[in-house]
Parts: sequence; C-alpha cells; structure tokens
Amino acid sequence: MPPGLLRDAASDPLIETTLESQLAYDGVFFQVVRDRVRCPDGHVGVREFIRHPGAVMIVAMPDEHTVLLERQFRYALGRSFIEMPAGKLEAGEDVLACAQRELIEETGFRAARWDRLGAFHNAIGYSDEKIEVYLARDLDFVGAATEAGEVLEVFSAPWRSLLEWTNTGIVSDVKTIIGVHWLEHFLAGGAGAGGVADAERGR
Amino acid sequence: MPPGLLRDAASDPLIETTLESQLAYDGVFFQVVRDRVRCPDGHVGVREFIRHPGAVMIVAMPDEHTVLLERQFRYALGRSFIEMPAGKLEAGEDVLACAQRELIEETGFRAARWDRLGAFHNAIGYSDEKIEVYLARDLDFVGAATEAGEVLEVFSAPWRSLLEWTNTGIVSDVKTIIGVHWLEHFLAGGAGAGGVADAERGR
Repeated sequence: MPPGLLRDAASDPLIETTLESQLAYDGVFFQVVRDRVRCPDGHVGVREFIRHPGAVMIVAMPDEHTVLLERQFRYALGRSFIEMPAGKLEAGEDVLACAQRELIEETGFRAARWDRLGAFHNAIGYSDEKIEVYLARDLDFVGAATEAGEVLEVFSAPWRSLLEWTNTGIVSDVKTIIGVHWLEHFLAGGAGAGGVADAERGR
Repeated sequence: MPPGLLRDAASDPLIETTLESQLAYDGVFFQVVRDRVRCPDGHVGVREFIRHPGAVMIVAMPDEHTVLLERQFRYALGRSFIEMPAGKLEAGEDVLACAQRELIEETGFRAARWDRLGAFHNAIGYSDEKIEVYLARDLDFVGAATEAGEVLEVFSAPWRSLLEWTNTGIVSDVKTIIGVHWLEHFLAGGAGAGGVADAERGR
C-alpha cells in the first residue's frame, strides 16, 4: 500500500470544497451536476460531472476456455463494439442480483456459480460511474429477454482469442479489456483482481 | 480476427439511424447530444451522450523499474485517486504533441523517447471519448506548469507495486489499470498492446 497516499477526504490536502451545487441537465439516461468549488490553491472553479447509478459486467464462461461476448451498436461512436455483457444498476438493486438479471436478459444464460473479480472507475474526470465485475460459470440456457431497442448479437469465443483481440486493438472497449485481464489473473490462481474474490452461489 | 464481426457501419445490421439530433446541454467542459434514433428492430428511441475531444495518458518511466504517478482530487467521486498523468486534446492538437505537453505541465518531466502502447474507449455507453496511451522514457526534469485549480501531487513507484495496487483495489482508475497492464505486456516483449507500437523520437 502506498504510504500516506490514501487519506480520508477530511484530512486530504487536495480536497475541493463545494460552494454551490446545481443540477445542470436532467436527461433521459443521466443527469449532469455543475458545481462551483474552492480548490486547495484558493482558486474558485467549476466541476461538472455525470451522476451514474453504477454498472456491472459479467465475464461469463460456458466452459473453461470460452467467454460469452456481444456485438452491440454504440451510437456515441457510430459503430458496433465487441464487449462483455453489462448493464446499469436499477434503484436499490443489489450488485450481484443486477449481474444475474443482466446476464439472463442479454444472453439468455443463467449461471449457478458466481465470483466477484473486482471493480473499477471508468471516467473519474467526469462521471461517478463504478463498474463491478463478476465471473459467471455453470451456465444454463433459459432464454434472453432484451428490451425494445436493445438489439445485440451474442456469440462465444476462446478467451485467449479475446486477449489477442485486445492486444491488436480489435477490441477497444475498456471494460472488456479489463475483464479478460482479470480473468487471466484469476485463472492463473491470483485472488480476485481489483478487490476480494467472493465465491457466491447464484440463484 | 473474429470472422464477420467487424463490419463497416453501412453494412452493419445493428446500425441505428438518426432521426433528429439536438445539442441538449452545452456545458463548461463537455456537451451532451440527445438524438432520436430508429433501432434495427424498428423501435424509435433516445440516445444521449457526451461529446469529448479525446485524451492521452502517459506511462512515464524515470528508470526501467519505476513509473510516475499522481494523486489528484476527483470531484465527481469526492476523493483523491492515484493515476497516471493524462489530459484532454486541445482543438486540432496532435496526439503525441498533447502527450508531451501534458507530461511536462503535470509532472515537469520532458521525455526524449516515446512509444505508442495503444488506445481504448472508456465509456462507450454514453461518451465518444478515446484515450491514447504512450510510454515515455529518457526523462529530464524541466519544471511543471499546472494551471490554477489543477492541484496534484506527483510521485514515483515501482511499476510492480502499481500492478499489485490494481490487484488489491487501491488503484481503481481504469486508465491507470490499463496503463500498467500494457506496460507489463510491452516490457515482456509484446508489441504495443491495443494497437501498433510506434517508436518515435520526442522533441
């Protein structure tokens, strides 16, 4: 652990103090907060960020060599991406319950064996989003249930191929890159990457 | 390469067609675009995303065992994070030039040796941001030049310690996690992760 590097906010000399807070944009999928803050150097500035409910991603393995992937159109970038199943937390929803729900909805697979691989923050400059990562095994097909407007292609691939696609830039979605790295670490016998691995029996 | 998985947008059956586009929020640091789209299943829906200029991150090594890190307060999450130097592209700015500028501004170091490690998308659900990653070596201290309100602590650490901190969750910033993984891959003799490695002499 880096000595003296992690401090609680109250004693952190880098803390920025809120002077004024405003809901600047109330959108369909997210809100933007725009605050006036006092910086530690005395400067008064603006901070602007997205309020996000948090998300989960699932590294789902039909067998020990293979992961489930999706091809999904990502409008912000105007093209499809190869990525692992993922979704946003609903209000008050438990993280593991969300992972189990999203895996079934998007891929049609229910998993009996769940391990937490860790969590990361994907856009600390302008979003409070945190993505929790679970490994799902012992899969049974029960049928997918995507919503209207949620069109995706589900397929499977050897996880070593996926690792290669991240190395060559074919896969550039960061959560998917992290997922395959943490899977590699987990399978090599490391504990859960990015946090404690908790073996949990699914429903 | 996954057969038949990467298609140009024109022939992609997953394509979503813009019906109406609107600048929904014009903020200080980013804009939000909110469009009405037709999905491939015929559903008419809303897509909402941040327009981002793109960013660079620098894996900077004072020597072969060590990386430069920063501690910086991230207002969206209300606490400080350990991360690698990074910054946003200015209008029309070359990516490598941006990396060289940001490294000096934030850490005070000029690097003579630059290699591109790759690029990734960090929030494909709601942002068009792409982060390019460079490795910077042969460092000389020339003095930092942070802006008012840009307060950060610069320190160095063995990159193997950083890798350990990402495994235990002490470091959760996704760009920094990717940076140390791609550095490990690069130092192990792999080509640039996430794309082609280009050796470039810096200025």
